[in-house]
Amino acid sequence: MELNDLVLVSVDDHVVEPPHLFEGRLPSKYVDLAPRFVTREDGTNAWRYEGQEMANVALNAVVGRPPEEYGIEPTSFAELRPGCYDINERDMDANGVLGSLCFPSFPQFCGQMFANTKDKELALALVQAYNDWHIEEWCGTHPGRFIPCVLPAPWDPAVMAAEVRRTARKGAHAVTFSENPSKLGWPSLHSDHWDPFWQACSDEQVVVCMHIGSSSQLVITAPDAPFDCLLTLTPMNIVQAAADLVWSPVLRKFPLLKVALSEGGIGWVPYFLERVDYNYERHHAWTGQDFGDRLPSEVFNDHVLLCFIDDRFGMASHEFLDLDHVMWECDYPHSDSTWPASPEKVLEHFETVSGISDHDIDRITHLNAMKHFSYAPFPLLGGKDRCTVAALRARAAGHDVSIRSVRPDLVGAQRTRAADLAATALPQ
Amino acid sequence: MELNDLVLVSVDDHVVEPPHLFEGRLPSKYVDLAPRFVTREDGTNAWRYEGQEMANVALNAVVGRPPEEYGIEPTSFAELRPGCYDINERDMDANGVLGSLCFPSFPQFCGQMFANTKDKELALALVQAYNDWHIEEWCGTHPGRFIPCVLPAPWDPAVMAAEVRRTARKGAHAVTFSENPSKLGWPSLHSDHWDPFWQACSDEQVVVCMHIGSSSQLVITAPDAPFDCLLTLTPMNIVQAAADLVWSPVLRKFPLLKVALSEGGIGWVPYFLERVDYNYERHHAWTGQDFGDRLPSEVFNDHVLLCFIDDRFGMASHEFLDLDHVMWECDYPHSDSTWPASPEKVLEHFETVSGISDHDIDRITHLNAMKHFSYAPFPLLGGKDRCTVAALRARAAGHDVSIRSVRPDLVGAQRTRAADLAATALPQ
Repeated sequence: MELNDLVLVSVDDHVVEPPHLFEGRLPSKYVDLAPRFVTREDGTNAWRYEGQEMANVALNAVVGRPPEEYGIEPTSFAELRPGCYDINERDMDANGVLGSLCFPSFPQFCGQMFANTKDKELALALVQAYNDWHIEEWCGTHPGRFIPCVLPAPWDPAVMAAEVRRTARKGAHAVTFSENPSKLGWPSLHSDHWDPFWQACSDEQVVVCMHIGSSSQLVITAPDAPFDCLLTLTPMNIVQAAADLVWSPVLRKFPLLKVALSEGGIGWVPYFLERVDYNYERHHAWTGQDFGDRLPSEVFNDHVLLCFIDDRFGMASHEFLDLDHVMWECDYPHSDSTWPASPEKVLEHFETVSGISDHDIDRITHLNAMKHFSYAPFPLLGGKDRCTVAALRARAAGHDVSIRSVRPDLVGAQRTRAADLAATALPQ
Repeated sequence: MELNDLVLVSVDDHVVEPPHLFEGRLPSKYVDLAPRFVTREDGTNAWRYEGQEMANVALNAVVGRPPEEYGIEPTSFAELRPGCYDINERDMDANGVLGSLCFPSFPQFCGQMFANTKDKELALALVQAYNDWHIEEWCGTHPGRFIPCVLPAPWDPAVMAAEVRRTARKGAHAVTFSENPSKLGWPSLHSDHWDPFWQACSDEQVVVCMHIGSSSQLVITAPDAPFDCLLTLTPMNIVQAAADLVWSPVLRKFPLLKVALSEGGIGWVPYFLERVDYNYERHHAWTGQDFGDRLPSEVFNDHVLLCFIDDRFGMASHEFLDLDHVMWECDYPHSDSTWPASPEKVLEHFETVSGISDHDIDRITHLNAMKHFSYAPFPLLGGKDRCTVAALRARAAGHDVSIRSVRPDLVGAQRTRAADLAATALPQ
């Protein structure tokens, strides 16, 4: 596989919502109640809603900065690459990326900011306005370049199911949900509470995306643990969601349901699958788990989509994975994004691994994403030849992707503890 | 490698302490204050100390029971195989196991039961009595068959260091400690609080053993999560200790220190090591971590000993591991023990894996344990030929290893939630 021939679809990027998001999308009685984009005294930006303020921390929009200037302080729009919030500046062509699925920022992964509203009619109006903006403007401005991923209405599974069906009719085949709703104060995956939601997603072929961090539980090993511990453990913590999924009734009850472990990585999965089968064989006689004539690992592989940014060991272990369920991510504009060298980084994954065919590479880089998210960009864009890394980068000739200093005052100033993040208002 | 030629040293087993433990080992003023072994009204046994009672739950002493009768209820000695508590009935020969390192039960992994005593002179007397009993009676009755592993005195690092040095002089080259002392109310690995302890272990070549569960933090994903979630996640949670170790100053400050991640498994390690190097390269410029001309994974590999019971994927990934630091475990008499078929189960690990030599197998099954724990059984037992699976099993001809029903009333009765364990008094 030549770098220029890669076709890259990223199933995990992020939008920093632009100030005009709600304009013209709410009933007049709610216009003054909606979240408001504000510039604070210190120059940073935030969304203000019902007495709360939600800022965007630097690590979540740091693309294009030198690593010496990374940090978790709240940002102002002036510091960000316009691609963070401006759909016409998304920097994808220069990075050779054809398609992108974007998660929300200020409403949080599970739409908690709206869901906690007392007036549930207002909450639904906000979720619907957000989703309409996301589908129509964010994903609709450049047809074929974005995979819609809508917010849920998690306070009521029936409302939630209806919103999934409504947005599916508008072309959305992904919904963001929590890796652990129990930690957000809702029932867990082990109850039947969410069944209307799973049923709707199953019926409408909507993938439930559980992004790392979406339980709002930071893994703080100790009050003085350095930030590096959090950076290491946050992705690995997705194994808790994986265990909940395997041992809950959800996957066995809804045979067509698909769940993506967004930014969850892949290198831990073979070990995990061996463990769940081992536990099943040793312990099901007294715990009462019943998988019939199947194994827990088989059920997991039927349902769970794996997503990685950079995971060499995972790719080296490809024989232990279901390659129809592995997808690539760019993570723009977060700190772990491979932008602007995504094609080069992706290709490195395949170059040293034996037994990976060009078809495997195509599955991982775009075919799986197209299948699972009902995403069909080629006809809209004039055919596959116009969607390759080479074709996209040719269109972006001269686009400035250089690393730019924006906060030189931060160099050497950041020595952050993991626990500090808990004190920062942020969508994780 | 033939099954009969294997030499098996297990670096993780457990003692259920016998009632006479403290007899003749305490100053007379403390005799009446020591923990007392009691039989309760319901027939179960426990240790009573300072108003608390610590029972032994079935999963921790269930060897020889049919899985249908597993559970987490408190046990009576009458239900246990005598090998759990009687050093002359340890069942090792029949299982072909030469050597065994045994962790404590009722004092908990970090000796919390003694450490929480207000009178620290009494606490130390208990720790020393326990350690003397462990070294002299438990490990001394059958010379060459046990690797002493002593309790720490975690309330004072200077006292702790002195006890490490005292017991090292008596031949103990392992000490059990917590995978996360911060969760037990003590300072974390990120402070310099424990430096006298690390220094003593480093000087005396004493391995610090961090057993899964030794932070007393159960991984409860939800109040209604089934017990299977806990069974899956408890071992995988050791990754938090691994992250603390890598990012703390401990390993870089004490270059000769060795830490064992007991029952931690191995299959997750290559992924973890890739993640820490990735995080280091991407983030050290702002987090301030400094590994000089080395990588975090290299420092980890220098110091950390990996231990597994059953881990096929880990063995298949052996090229990504430091095989001088991988050791086997039997876990007798816990529920995950491979007793009485340990040789057969171990050998299966190597049979389907390419690139594993007989020397590699010897390293994993016994040479590494002998080196790291300063354990030299062959001269004491008449040479290696008398220590093989074949030789040991020949001595145990006729020993009854059949599975025996002891609690038929439990069949079908156990449908346990993970959260139920938190309500049970147990050493995890």
